[in-house]
Order: sequence, then structure tokens, then C-alpha cells
Amino acid sequence: MPELLPRAQSSSESVFAHMSRLALRHGAVNLGQGFPSDPPPAFLLDAARRAVGTADQYAPPIGLPLLRDAVGADLGVDGADVVVTSGATEALNVLALALYGPGDEVLMCEPVFDVYVPQARLAGAMPVTVPMRLTDEEGWALDLDAVRAAVTPRTRALLLNSPYNPTGTVFSRAELDALVALARAHDLWIISDEVYDELYFGEQPVALRDLAPERTFTVGSAGKRLEATGWRVGWIACPPGLAGNVAAIRQVGSFCAPTPFQAAVASALPVARREGFYEGLRAEYGERMRLLAGGLRRLGATVFEPRGTYFLTLRRPGWTAETLVEEGVAVIPGTAFYVSHPAPEGMFRLAFCKSRGELGRALERLERGTHVGA
Amino acid sequence: MPELLPRAQSSSESVFAHMSRLALRHGAVNLGQGFPSDPPPAFLLDAARRAVGTADQYAPPIGLPLLRDAVGADLGVDGADVVVTSGATEALNVLALALYGPGDEVLMCEPVFDVYVPQARLAGAMPVTVPMRLTDEEGWALDLDAVRAAVTPRTRALLLNSPYNPTGTVFSRAELDALVALARAHDLWIISDEVYDELYFGEQPVALRDLAPERTFTVGSAGKRLEATGWRVGWIACPPGLAGNVAAIRQVGSFCAPTPFQAAVASALPVARREGFYEGLRAEYGERMRLLAGGLRRLGATVFEPRGTYFLTLRRPGWTAETLVEEGVAVIPGTAFYVSHPAPEGMFRLAFCKSRGELGRALERLERGTHVGA
Ligand SMILES: Cc1ncc(COP(=O)(O)O)c(C=O)c1O
Ligand SMILES: Cc1ncc(COP(=O)(O)O)c(C=O)c1O
Repeated sequence: MPELLPRAQSSSESVFAHMSRLALRHGAVNLGQGFPSDPPPAFLLDAARRAVGTADQYAPPIGLPLLRDAVGADLGVDGADVVVTSGATEALNVLALALYGPGDEVLMCEPVFDVYVPQARLAGAMPVTVPMRLTDEEGWALDLDAVRAAVTPRTRALLLNSPYNPTGTVFSRAELDALVALARAHDLWIISDEVYDELYFGEQPVALRDLAPERTFTVGSAGKRLEATGWRVGWIACPPGLAGNVAAIRQVGSFCAPTPFQAAVASALPVARREGFYEGLRAEYGERMRLLAGGLRRLGATVFEPRGTYFLTLRRPGWTAETLVEEGVAVIPGTAFYVSHPAPEGMFRLAFCKSRGELGRALERLERGTHVGA
Repeated sequence: MPELLPRAQSSSESVFAHMSRLALRHGAVNLGQGFPSDPPPAFLLDAARRAVGTADQYAPPIGLPLLRDAVGADLGVDGADVVVTSGATEALNVLALALYGPGDEVLMCEPVFDVYVPQARLAGAMPVTVPMRLTDEEGWALDLDAVRAAVTPRTRALLLNSPYNPTGTVFSRAELDALVALARAHDLWIISDEVYDELYFGEQPVALRDLAPERTFTVGSAGKRLEATGWRVGWIACPPGLAGNVAAIRQVGSFCAPTPFQAAVASALPVARREGFYEGLRAEYGERMRLLAGGLRRLGATVFEPRGTYFLTLRRPGWTAETLVEEGVAVIPGTAFYVSHPAPEGMFRLAFCKSRGELGRALERLERGTHVGA
């Protein structure tokens, strides 16, 4: 048999998919992978059931005109600058291919959403990670000096994520201004992964495209926004004039995103905005977050309360993800988010986009488990 | 502003998407892009409407277990060797990344389904095309000697397509045996694009995996099989033991295929088989093909009747795709399928997966138009 390429030698599945499989096997409450327990809202489901049977054939690779306009209206950009993708994962992959290649470096913070690293490598480029600072007292903090120091003549792009998975950080206006200044000084692209743009618990996150419209690609996800992670509709809002180039690469990867779900999301985006769907989500998830955080603190964990996303991180030296899943709770180990630096000892990420019942059960099991195991 | 990479300099959309847009603009009958006018079958639509609201979150990147097993049962392979993708387009892209890279060549026939070429290039490899022979008397024929002569020490894979878009060729058992012998002699992978495996008008196509199971990756498409090209569910049946490697690359591209449609296709595949859905499709499309071919011959075209796919090719020097779409009929010009050799003069591809009404209207318009234009 011929050999597989070096880039195809690994057969390890994503840590999120892996933990979901272990959760199933052990009958564990799944606080690992970031998908909600609640169903998508009725206005979205109804729109999808209507679209099935009426919008079943290929869409334009760049996206259904109605959806591009709906995303544009929602984000305050021109629909002509929007490219629709098969989820934010594909959006990020397409941008990697378009913006960096052999000999290029792309800067990202660590802990890092896992897929950024293999995407940069598949594009032929070198991912360079800058560690966030973490202290038990102050939680996570961006190290601007370290970001500045990591820029080299080969750096082509900053890949930023705010609200930030897994840390829950929301970068401040001052931090973003500094990052934009850096990008302008070194003529870097900015990829702004804003899939959690509507999931925040304090001040509303600043959209990077408003600060640097000429160089910012904003990545969004209908799956995250509307609680339908399996529908695979995402988008990129491009700097003016670049949507055609991005779509030309996108069509080679998977041709187009699922047409019926594009139609459904197009009709749901204005409804979600008008009917206060995101406010409701924030209120509910804020409560669940505090429920989980409180319970975890009682178990001796140091909890870093997020300002956004539906994840919280904690430190609890002594716990291991393997033991926890056997005891009935699936979580993601901090090590999954570290590639070039050591993970903080005993760090874990827990998703709280799960039902109150599940969160309660998880806490009970952790309480029983740690008495035995730790 | 920084530059885009060379591979992102083009902003041209796929010729199929382009012609569909022109068709819309001119109110033309769209015999260009390969999607059916008929809706997907009721058993598929019902399954999808049931899945929406119950299977809305991430699937495993390798695919829903139920769908992997359903594809395996349908093809006569082990479900463990099946990887689910976002359409066959993504399947082909993932295989390009897994099987060839810088310094490698991949052999394919010309006329070539357009996406093979940019996919090979994005993977870093060199697409090498071998022209099919075409004569007005015999139609399309595989040139086995030319294929053999094109193999070099850098060749890593044969990318084959039978039933063949656009020619409609179905390779014979003898031709496939010769290609397998060539692949074995030079230790090449075989990628067998069989998205039209159920669309044939004579003998049933031979599946390459049955001849060379150790090296053949079979690509399939639920969109083509079940008349729902916009749903984006495809698959790869891999040689034993390689599904994990393929899925590891696939998860980086778009994480997973749309979950509700995976569930719907899983339940629909055995129904389609049991209820004779494919036989019905073949009978109906066979008639439409003969309807269109007959009409075109009366207009002076040399028609090459396909043995499979829902496309026919013809030669009619004097016609141009630009004029035809303005006169009310969108077709794909032969030049769209040629990258390294000249296209046969006056060659076009027409899709007959359209309603009888549309085919009739197209013929009427061509008749009127050619009196004026040619
Ligand atoms: C930061 C971040 N970006 C992108 C994604 C991928 O989103 P999608 O499901 O739309 O592909 C995720 C999913 O968890 C994420 O956390
Ligand atoms: C030969 C061939 N392969 C692959 C595809 C892509 O199929 P899908 O729509 O499943 O991506 C097509 C679509 O026309 C095709 O003709």
C-alpha cells in the first residue's frame, strides 16, 4: 500500500468528540462538548421544517442571498461582504487557506480552541501561541507585551477569540485597540472568532470589525447563536471587496452550506433579535453558570467565572478527566487547549449550556466522586 | 493591506454556480447545474422533518453511527470503514489532503469535473489530466495507453469517475481491471468518484472497491442519490483501517455534516433500496434523456448519449453558452471541463434531471434561437 501523507498519519479524534463518546459509554453527564441540552427555539425549527421540501438543492457557494443580507443586517455590515460557510469551523479553515501559507506565522492565544492549530498547519503555516496569564486571584488576563514580542517579519495574521473559549474572557476596548494598533503597525490580517458574540454576562463585547474594518474577518456561527450546533451554518463578514476571493476557496472545500438550514437561519436571525431571544439566553445561562460555579466552589475548586461563552474554567488539582468521566461527569481537561506551553495544573473546562437537572446531577456525582477519589 | 495568498487571488465562482446565476437573470431554463427539478422523495422529506427538533446538535466528525452503518449496508462494506462528509465535494477534498501533497501527481481524465483540479492544487499536488478520445461516430472512449503513459514516479493516485460527469461514460469491467492493474503495478491509491452509482441506463456500473478493496476510496453523495443536492451529506468508504485517519482531517475542515440530514439519510437509504426508488429514477431519467437527445438531434447537434449520470454531451459548432443563456437556455460549455487540452469544438453539457416541461421549453427556445443565432 502507498503511504498516507504525514498530515494524515494521525487518527485521533477531536477531544470534544472523544469526550462525548466516553460520556455516552459511561452514562456520564456531558459537560464536555459545547452543545446545548435545550432544543433550538421553535421559530427556528418551524422555519427549517418549512424549508425542507422547498429549498433542497444547491445554494450559491457564497451563500443564499437572503441569508447574506440577514447576516449583514444583524452585524451592521453589507450583505455583499458576507460569505456563508458550513459552520464556523469551515469559516476558520477557509480563512487559514486564504490568509497564510508556507513560511507564514499566525499568532493566537493559548489556551487555544483546538482546531486553530491543525488548520494553520494544513494551510502550510506555523501557529505561534502566546500564553494567557492565569492567577487564582485575578483569573485569566491577556499578556499584551507577550503578544507584541511574538510578532516577527513572518507574522501574517492575529487569530483572536472574544468571548474566548475556553477562558470566558471578553477583551476590553483598550485591549482590542492595542491589538488593532499592532496589526496596523505590522500589516497583519485579523481573524476575529466571535461565535459567542451574543453570549456574555457583563458588558457587550466590542466587535473588532468596528475598530479595523479594513483588515478584520469576523467569524460567526448560527449553531452557537441559535442552539443548533449540528446544522452547520456559519459565516464570515469580510473586509469590503474580499468576499469573492474567500468564496472561491470555500466552494472547493464543500461547495455550499446546507440550503434548507440557510433559509431557516435567514428567517430566524431577525426574529431572534426582535423577540429578545439572546437576552433570554444570557439571563438563563447566567443563572446556570452561577449555579455550577457555586457548586464547584463548595467542592474546593477555584472557579474562573466567564464574562462570555457557555464555558467556565476551574482549577482543582487532583481531579483527572478520566476519573471524572468514570464517576459520571464528562469535562474537557485543560491540556486539550495547550500545544506549546504547559497547562495550568488541574485546569478543566466545563460547559454550562446544559439543563439545570444535568448541572445538579453533575454536582452530586462530583461530590460523591471526590470523597472517594481525591 | 496585506496581500492574499496566491491561492486566494481568484474570485471566480464555479462555472455551475455562475451559469445558475445567469439563468436566473435571463429567466432561462437551467440545464446547466446538476440538480433536479423534482423534489426529494416524500420518505426522505418526512424523515428530515422528524429529525429537525430531535437531532440538532453536533454529530461525531466521522459520522452518525446509524448513517455509517446504513451506508455500509448499502454498499456492502463495513460501517466502520465509512466516513461521513459535507457532500461528495468535501469527501474529495479530504482525500486530496490525505493522499497527495507537494511533489505528488494525481492522474485524472479530461474532460474533468471542475473541482478536482483546484482541490489537487490546494493540497499542494499537481493534477495531471489525460484526455478522453471523442469521435462523432463512437462518442467518448477511455485512452488506456495514454493513462499508462502519464504515470511517473511522482504519481500517487488515480482519480476516477464512473458514471462519468460530463461524458456519461461507464467504464467497463475490462477497463477497470486494467486501471487496477496499473494502480497495483505503481502502488497508487484509487479515488473512485461514484456519486452517480445508481444513475445508469444500461449495465450496472462495477464498483472499483470490489476490484481493489485494499486501495480504493469510494466517494458517494446522498444529494445525488436522493435528489437533495443542498443537504450536503456525502461519504467515503475507505480501505479497511483508514477511516480514522480520514476523519481526523475531515473534522478540521467543517467538523461534521449536518446532523438532522445525516439522520434522515440513514433512515432513507434502506427505504430507497427496498422500494425501488433508484429503478424509478433510472426509468424516468432514461425517458427524459431520450426526449432531450431526440430534440437536440433534430436541431443538428451530434449527441453522445450517456450510459450514466443525468448529463448528456453534444457537439454543435456555432452555439455559444453566452448566446444560449440569453436565448433562454442555460448549459455548461465544454471548455469548463478542460484545463490542459483544448475542448472539442462546440461541445456542451446539458442536464436532463429537469422536468419534462422544462426540457420541452428548452428545446422550443433552442429551435427559435438557432434559427436566429446560428
Ligand atoms: C471559539 C469557537 N470557534 C468556533 C467554533 C466552531 O463553531 P461551529 O460549530 O459553527 O463550527 C467553536 C465551537 O465550539 C468555538 O468554540
Ligand atoms: C462527479 C461529481 N462528483 C462530485 C460531485 C459533488 O457532489 P456533492 O453535491 O455531494 O458535493 C458532483 C456534483 O455535481 C459530481 O458531478
